[in-house]
Amino acid sequence: MGSRMAANLARAGHEVAVYNRTAEKAEAWVAQHGGRVAATPRDAAQGAAAVITMVVDGPQVEQALLGDDGAAHGAVPGTLMIDMSTIAPADARRIGAALAERGLAFVDAPVSGSSPKAEDGSLTIMAGGSDADVARARPFFDAMGEKILHVGELGQGQTVKVISNAVGATNCATLAQALVVGKAAGVDLPSLVSVLGASSGASYMVTLKAGPMLEHDYTPLFRLEHMLKDVAICLSESEAAGAPFPAAALAHELYAAAMGRGLAEQDFASVLEAAEGLAGIRI
Amino acid sequence: MGSRMAANLARAGHEVAVYNRTAEKAEAWVAQHGGRVAATPRDAAQGAAAVITMVVDGPQVEQALLGDDGAAHGAVPGTLMIDMSTIAPADARRIGAALAERGLAFVDAPVSGSSPKAEDGSLTIMAGGSDADVARARPFFDAMGEKILHVGELGQGQTVKVISNAVGATNCATLAQALVVGKAAGVDLPSLVSVLGASSGASYMVTLKAGPMLEHDYTPLFRLEHMLKDVAICLSESEAAGAPFPAAALAHELYAAAMGRGLAEQDFASVLEAAEGLAGIRI
Repeated sequence: MGSRMAANLARAGHEVAVYNRTAEKAEAWVAQHGGRVAATPRDAAQGAAAVITMVVDGPQVEQALLGDDGAAHGAVPGTLMIDMSTIAPADARRIGAALAERGLAFVDAPVSGSSPKAEDGSLTIMAGGSDADVARARPFFDAMGEKILHVGELGQGQTVKVISNAVGATNCATLAQALVVGKAAGVDLPSLVSVLGASSGASYMVTLKAGPMLEHDYTPLFRLEHMLKDVAICLSESEAAGAPFPAAALAHELYAAAMGRGLAEQDFASVLEAAEGLAGIRI
Repeated sequence: MGSRMAANLARAGHEVAVYNRTAEKAEAWVAQHGGRVAATPRDAAQGAAAVITMVVDGPQVEQALLGDDGAAHGAVPGTLMIDMSTIAPADARRIGAALAERGLAFVDAPVSGSSPKAEDGSLTIMAGGSDADVARARPFFDAMGEKILHVGELGQGQTVKVISNAVGATNCATLAQALVVGKAAGVDLPSLVSVLGASSGASYMVTLKAGPMLEHDYTPLFRLEHMLKDVAICLSESEAAGAPFPAAALAHELYAAAMGRGLAEQDFASVLEAAEGLAGIRI
């Protein structure tokens, strides 16, 4: 995702300094798109108007921005830091507070959309932060995304992202259960999927995951362990906010059971295996 | 729905005899579309190649086909009976068995799609029955529907229909909970809805019900009591088949609690009130 997003920044005329833990990847990117390879995040931030991180989780963002060779040490005061990874909202708030102490601005701006959308610059970007900071980030977002939403304060971009993923995960777990019920009841499953896709039961998950489920094809597009992590973050947030989310809690239980079946690195469609296990039926 | 479906049969060149408990409705239909008014279902079946019922529930279908003035008494042996209502699969099987004793064929063929789709003949029709019976019903289906699926044996059209409605009901209840969680966490709800519609959380329910939920507008398109009935039928079927459907069971609990709040005749989007009640938060 990150390399494709950076390519769109370069295409929009921004000078890009790239850092990747695997130097060869950064070198290959620069060979293709121009800009320069940075030796460290600190180096990448030298002279930069903005620093953008796109990594796996909160600790990685913290390391990249605030670690020994972190970008915070290379940036001049007032520089805008933008994290576009999906991390816990609490991590985003903590990192934002630490950056603020150094006079650095921070916006959390996770994205929705797969690699093709990163490639053609049509990501959905949900930004959390002050009006002024999000406005400063806007030109960069315009280069990478199509739908750009300022959803609330710092951390709330992440909150919206994990709620959205939790809804997707829940719809997917519901679909898995429905297919198992259909099988148990003896209906033709491709017909059931066809009806689901053309009725009140339609969802992006039916479009995307019903086919692979019927084939038990779990080639990973988004790993089950990552989806489980996002649902868990959503539940932490909803619990802290005092609003139960029982549908997502039930889905979490099924994804966790699928993890227990060794499916962590498979696509999250493999939650089907937990639904099959519940019923003792294979579709 | 029934009057619009019958109009498409007439347009396709079928001679239609119409019966409605309110005679004026049948007379108005005939004045517009031709055919004849039948005094009873028995009368409607006289000389008919097929009898089609479109009513509210299993007891009404049973009355129309097997009651004192039921169509079974007016039909010659071999006549095809087609029920396009949404009823319990067990009711469809029982009615089918009673008709078979009289030498009458039966297909259950519930539909998906609202009044506009009934009007322009683009319904999704999911048929259960023998290959021969469904083949005989096909010309009638072609006049009324766009996507016509033979999903299994007698009763399984209904099974697919209630599974599909249960998935829709569950996705809708999940959406309601997500909006309450978003409100509790302080995010901008229209932005959350916009992200949901453009992400893995997208569903027909987000498209159709998120707007009314934000307005607390429960103008009935499909009543909560009817959705609850369909979810309950789905759960009976899944339990009888030995496959648990916990996501639908959880949704059932929320719709039932919304019923207890006096929302039976409101749109099923009012399940939001039960989700708000869980959290003690109004969105």
